[in-house]
Amino acid sequence: MAKPSKNTGPASKQGPKPAARLPKGFLDTPAEDIRATHRMLETIRAVYDRYGFEPLETPAIEYTDALGKFLPDQDRPNEGVFSFQDDDEQWLSLRYDLTAPLARYVAENFAVLPKPFRRYAVGPVWRNEKPGPGRFRQFIQFDADTVGTDNIAADAEICMLAADTLEALGIKRGDYVIKVSNRKLLDGVMELAGLDGDDNAGRRLIVLRAIDKADKFPIEEVKKLLGGGRKDESGDFTKGADLAPDQIEQIVALLAGGPNSNAGRLDALVSLYGANPLAAEGIHELRKIDELAEASGYGERIRIDTSCVRGLEYYTGPVFEAELTFQVKNEDGQIVRFGSAGGGGRYDGLVERFLGQKVPATGFSIGVSRLAAALAALNKGKEAAADGPVVVLVMEKDRVADYQRMVQSLRQAGIRAEMYLGTAGMKAQMKYADKRGAPCVVIQGGDERAKGEVQIKDLVEGAKASASIKDSKEWREGRPAQVSIAERDLVAAVREVLARHKR
Amino acid sequence: MAKPSKNTGPASKQGPKPAARLPKGFLDTPAEDIRATHRMLETIRAVYDRYGFEPLETPAIEYTDALGKFLPDQDRPNEGVFSFQDDDEQWLSLRYDLTAPLARYVAENFAVLPKPFRRYAVGPVWRNEKPGPGRFRQFIQFDADTVGTDNIAADAEICMLAADTLEALGIKRGDYVIKVSNRKLLDGVMELAGLDGDDNAGRRLIVLRAIDKADKFPIEEVKKLLGGGRKDESGDFTKGADLAPDQIEQIVALLAGGPNSNAGRLDALVSLYGANPLAAEGIHELRKIDELAEASGYGERIRIDTSCVRGLEYYTGPVFEAELTFQVKNEDGQIVRFGSAGGGGRYDGLVERFLGQKVPATGFSIGVSRLAAALAALNKGKEAAADGPVVVLVMEKDRVADYQRMVQSLRQAGIRAEMYLGTAGMKAQMKYADKRGAPCVVIQGGDERAKGEVQIKDLVEGAKASASIKDSKEWREGRPAQVSIAERDLVAAVREVLARHKR
Repeated sequence: MAKPSKNTGPASKQGPKPAARLPKGFLDTPAEDIRATHRMLETIRAVYDRYGFEPLETPAIEYTDALGKFLPDQDRPNEGVFSFQDDDEQWLSLRYDLTAPLARYVAENFAVLPKPFRRYAVGPVWRNEKPGPGRFRQFIQFDADTVGTDNIAADAEICMLAADTLEALGIKRGDYVIKVSNRKLLDGVMELAGLDGDDNAGRRLIVLRAIDKADKFPIEEVKKLLGGGRKDESGDFTKGADLAPDQIEQIVALLAGGPNSNAGRLDALVSLYGANPLAAEGIHELRKIDELAEASGYGERIRIDTSCVRGLEYYTGPVFEAELTFQVKNEDGQIVRFGSAGGGGRYDGLVERFLGQKVPATGFSIGVSRLAAALAALNKGKEAAADGPVVVLVMEKDRVADYQRMVQSLRQAGIRAEMYLGTAGMKAQMKYADKRGAPCVVIQGGDERAKGEVQIKDLVEGAKASASIKDSKEWREGRPAQVSIAERDLVAAVREVLARHKR
Repeated sequence: MAKPSKNTGPASKQGPKPAARLPKGFLDTPAEDIRATHRMLETIRAVYDRYGFEPLETPAIEYTDALGKFLPDQDRPNEGVFSFQDDDEQWLSLRYDLTAPLARYVAENFAVLPKPFRRYAVGPVWRNEKPGPGRFRQFIQFDADTVGTDNIAADAEICMLAADTLEALGIKRGDYVIKVSNRKLLDGVMELAGLDGDDNAGRRLIVLRAIDKADKFPIEEVKKLLGGGRKDESGDFTKGADLAPDQIEQIVALLAGGPNSNAGRLDALVSLYGANPLAAEGIHELRKIDELAEASGYGERIRIDTSCVRGLEYYTGPVFEAELTFQVKNEDGQIVRFGSAGGGGRYDGLVERFLGQKVPATGFSIGVSRLAAALAALNKGKEAAADGPVVVLVMEKDRVADYQRMVQSLRQAGIRAEMYLGTAGMKAQMKYADKRGAPCVVIQGGDERAKGEVQIKDLVEGAKASASIKDSKEWREGRPAQVSIAERDLVAAVREVLARHKR
């Protein structure tokens, strides 16, 4: 591409006009999605408030080093984050999650914060990664964290919080489960299998990833990933952890499901892995969580499930996953469990990076667009409310002040309303009202005005009627779903139409 | 600064640990500010919804050329925006307002949007500018715009929207005014004063800026800015527009205030400037706005005020300013009018940049933190609600499950509550509850447990009582504001305390 000449400027890079387009991996959000997500976030916020968490907002931009996002051994930011230099040449980055800024905030304000510090945060995060289907470079997270305590009750509470949040959003008991496992147990099992020590770090990671696949793959395929490796349908080969058969058996026992109760599964874990001190500690913590959940009536909803791993390496204790168990059609038309809508766990290292002292923490993060998709799937088929504004048509252009007055009287009565503000005729105005999802339009031409009346046309009823009437003459004469009323009764009459179409 | 060696990595730039700090010009927002702003935004959102505007969210990142933010004649982004290159080397920028992304969105979706298109948007914007007191590099805007109509009723409606929004937020009629002027009038007046033509573009800008100062400076100082220039108290000299005395008089007549009614002022404007066609058109539009406002009962609140300019050069017709007229103390302790909390106007060029066709638009933008400051000033002195969580203390460490159960019963009753999750003793737990703003704490030690009771300590009453009791023995024995109740009555008893302290 030729460098633009000095006088035409950069616009000439795409011709005289810039193209109106978004960079790849970014999305505009339409009104109905915003409204649905907003309702969802308000509900979550209310639950988190009730649990005693306080809101915190940190800016989108942080120092790259504070986010811990320099490339290892290099003076250059990780390519996975959006980075740029400030005018003093220090590197800045857009936050890629809400946990790293929390760690910075806690470290910066450690002396004055109540301890434990309980906060929730909701907002966009950015990933400078290759976008794909359902993978964007900006998305919203909703996190709750308790920082500054190693009390296992804090972890148990996070699980109850997750359960209460899902139910507040209308997801029925039985349609979800909060799965809990423990990294200490996993690490202990790997120790038992002889995978301890720095030499085995790579193999441990492969094992974690293999376990994480257990909800997608049959057990035999997981075993291949733990052993010599696995070839998928397309012929691609994934290197395995190269474990011996007895090592593999020791690990896949974690995935067996086991007895039907938390207590039973915990007992089975003790006999399988209790000999290892780290595993025993992990099992003990899980038992505590189960006891607390039971005592508060959450025992059925919070399931000790050792197939739960969570990918992030920084977890150090209990890990949680909120799994939605109801079924949906996936992109290929197959019926599948909806799956994870959020997760989290205990992490001890993040604040320590700054302070040099251990500040144990535990938290839970909701993938907002994924949960919104789950709610949309649950609500599919329910009739949407006609939530567009009532549109007052402009029949006589010199009487705009009268129409505007009608609109204001509707608005003052709390009714969503607007006057048509374009310049087109009656037919285009009706089309506009349709496009806006208006429940009804208000019409006052010269005839109506002379009688002190207005006409209200119910667009929802009208659409139904038009489906059954074929003759356009019959239509015009019958004027289905259209009533004349005295202008002073406008608000009451519109309220009647709205009441008819309430969801 | 030395380049870090290969093995220590970039953290060594500030020693082994990164410093926990924010870049300059960025802020963390504490919980009480978030809550107040959130309430405010919800109220604004409800009014904008009622007016028929639809929410729209666009991403934080846009192509730099789509924002129109390349430096003139250069292939380099404007320094006022945060910019970085994508992996295909195209320049990206963080949005610096919500209007430029709206223009991109409308141009991109022009064929399918309802016309006019009415949308509101709220969210952070970023300015890569030198921060100062009250000036940040990230802040929130709340915009409403009607795109695709030159109907002056759209402008009138924006003024009513502004008035209704301020009243919905609790700002009383008389404590605000929506000022309206018109760029066409200003341009016409400048034509009359001989300031038309490209040669005078610089002087016109100086004149606009001078008029904009009229609410801060006495008229004599404004005249200096229109004439030879002005020296301020510190001795700094501002170059003037170098107008002749009769030109100056012609322009300052705009600032005179004039008759006491909109109609009277409009008549005066006609006799002063009506000879100029552009000015006459501007006055005609203002008269339309006044008629529409009058007809809907907003005449007193929407004031034709020709001192209103609005700085942005892209306005092409009516301009609005929401001015808060109540008085507050400024940073120097002087009593001043609060001043502007938002503004806007008509602009025709923004979408045209992309499409090559005129797409007239009008809009209004609220400076969220400034309006929040106004509301805080109005509400000052009102007692804050004790909105912290009820804290259940942990008296016996092996009974955490019991305390957790109490907490869950409170939460299930809709009460904000938490169990103390740290490991400290009674005294530190009470301190924690104080710091959290807890209205009360719930206490159950061995004695209470034996009797099936809990103690509830009202911290708000307790604080009042402790102010009047000097003797710590008297305090301990009297246990002011502390009651014992049966454990089964916990929820009801806590509700009583909360009702006592409701704002």
